[in-house]
Amino acid sequence: MRILSGMRPTGKLHIGHLFGALQSWVNLQKEHESFYFVADWHALTTHYNDTDEIIKNSIELVKSYLAVGIDPNKSTIFIQSEIKEHAELTLLFSMFVPVSRLERVPTYKEIKQQLKDRDLSNAGFLIYPVLQASDILIYMAEGVPVGEDQVYHIELTREIARKFNYLYKEVFPEPKPILSKVPKLLGTDGRKMSKSYGNTIPLITNENTLKKMVMPMITDPARKRRTDPGNPEKCPVWDYHKAFGINSEDEAWVKDGCTNAKIGCVDCKKLLLKNMKEKLEPIWEKYNLLTDNYVKDVIVDGNKKAKKIAQETMEKVRSAMNLDYSFLKGTR
Amino acid sequence: MRILSGMRPTGKLHIGHLFGALQSWVNLQKEHESFYFVADWHALTTHYNDTDEIIKNSIELVKSYLAVGIDPNKSTIFIQSEIKEHAELTLLFSMFVPVSRLERVPTYKEIKQQLKDRDLSNAGFLIYPVLQASDILIYMAEGVPVGEDQVYHIELTREIARKFNYLYKEVFPEPKPILSKVPKLLGTDGRKMSKSYGNTIPLITNENTLKKMVMPMITDPARKRRTDPGNPEKCPVWDYHKAFGINSEDEAWVKDGCTNAKIGCVDCKKLLLKNMKEKLEPIWEKYNLLTDNYVKDVIVDGNKKAKKIAQETMEKVRSAMNLDYSFLKGTR
Repeated sequence: MRILSGMRPTGKLHIGHLFGALQSWVNLQKEHESFYFVADWHALTTHYNDTDEIIKNSIELVKSYLAVGIDPNKSTIFIQSEIKEHAELTLLFSMFVPVSRLERVPTYKEIKQQLKDRDLSNAGFLIYPVLQASDILIYMAEGVPVGEDQVYHIELTREIARKFNYLYKEVFPEPKPILSKVPKLLGTDGRKMSKSYGNTIPLITNENTLKKMVMPMITDPARKRRTDPGNPEKCPVWDYHKAFGINSEDEAWVKDGCTNAKIGCVDCKKLLLKNMKEKLEPIWEKYNLLTDNYVKDVIVDGNKKAKKIAQETMEKVRSAMNLDYSFLKGTR
Repeated sequence: MRILSGMRPTGKLHIGHLFGALQSWVNLQKEHESFYFVADWHALTTHYNDTDEIIKNSIELVKSYLAVGIDPNKSTIFIQSEIKEHAELTLLFSMFVPVSRLERVPTYKEIKQQLKDRDLSNAGFLIYPVLQASDILIYMAEGVPVGEDQVYHIELTREIARKFNYLYKEVFPEPKPILSKVPKLLGTDGRKMSKSYGNTIPLITNENTLKKMVMPMITDPARKRRTDPGNPEKCPVWDYHKAFGINSEDEAWVKDGCTNAKIGCVDCKKLLLKNMKEKLEPIWEKYNLLTDNYVKDVIVDGNKKAKKIAQETMEKVRSAMNLDYSFLKGTR
């Protein structure tokens, strides 16, 4: 099964991305041919008037992919906008995707309401699920690791594949979403984790900064004083413990200590910090070892591999749609 | 001034195209660097499910361009879909063109009403003025010969150029529409000339067929019998006389003969036929001399020239939008 997924280069990653996507990508590459890309054209759909950092963020994103363990010998890592064929396929798909179908995509209205400070009135934002379908189908991907909110987009991708195959010729597979169990992690202030709230823990950081973010984290609101008993099930820090791994001995210690007010939240957080460091430090170390030239080489190689496949697909697409002018070649 | 225009390869051209566009193209190339293209992607916006003939029609269209006198030594003749950069620029422009702006394009609703047998509900049909803007701006064209119905699209193209220049960097000129005096020609049945009515006179035909189409043409409805006086101003045939050129002596003969019932409509049409043949026969002769290989060579050369300019523009566009990854080149 061929796997494809990507992220938008809109800023630094946080630990939500690690558990929500990257960890699953690393696992999938072990058994499947995988393509992980930087969706920089997608970033334009919401950030068209704010592109100063886009290349920096793209390079940064690839560094993060590599740091968490995406292996360029197993996976193809590439930049979307460097594979122009995605744009051609998007244009061709748009010819048979109804506007009303795109308006009915649930995220179309939802994101418009969520990001009120962004201008989302543009055609690019309307057609971005078509661009997404092109990203996936141009590599003939069959499995797409996504979050719950993206399942509908994969369904639309399947529809587009079906409609193309029906209208012209059987070219595309119908990809399936791959949902992984994602631990629910709140932001450090107890609200939904979101960059716009400034309550996220960056994926790439250092011990000191991590400590400064974890120690003041909101815990079970019922536990106002050290002597108040707490309930781990109502404590965001407990969710972090589960996500970052806690051994059974420590688990018993936290549960007993919290519910019977034997330990303070500071004790509990110190244990979390230790476990977080254990998981994150190897990522930080790897990140710091990555040279600019190595990252560039990874991208150049990945782009080359991706382009070859994208070109092969487009040859099939043009031939199926009767737009294959290659017979012109060789007359001169 | 750089000139650009194009036609959709949706079937054989008729004499409306000659007077409405081609004649003006031939004149413009004498003084201006000109680009004339086959808008095959545009054909998909209305004919996505009917592409069997698209390549045949595209080649045919280029043959017609050449037959009427577009000179490949003066003008660049190319096929839109062979210059993939148009698709990339369309995607990038779509990021900042509001959906509501596209819905307000008058032809969007008009054509939907006119072509009720076509599925025009798709995203491709909505964004086709953006594709059109890309076609024009990617060649930095400053003058666009168009019909009245396309003036609004050029205005939108100017808006897109302005918005790009404002958002990113001064890259594009603001092209102007070039309107030529177009003689009003009705169809052979007296209704609006339209391929769907089957009342058009093909541009490429022969004397016999032309005769069969001209002789039964509708004339002034008041002139039911040979002995009824007619009024040239109410006669579609008279419009044809003016379009195809009539000398002053003949003009006097027709006007007197018609209004005083001295000549019959058959006499008048015979004169028209002679003048039509004089204008059209050189086009037919040239058309019949064009070999497939010559036409292919013209396209291959034109595509090459067009692609070079399109690539140069896209380099400027990517650089202006901060999407220029060319620094990656040369690391490996």
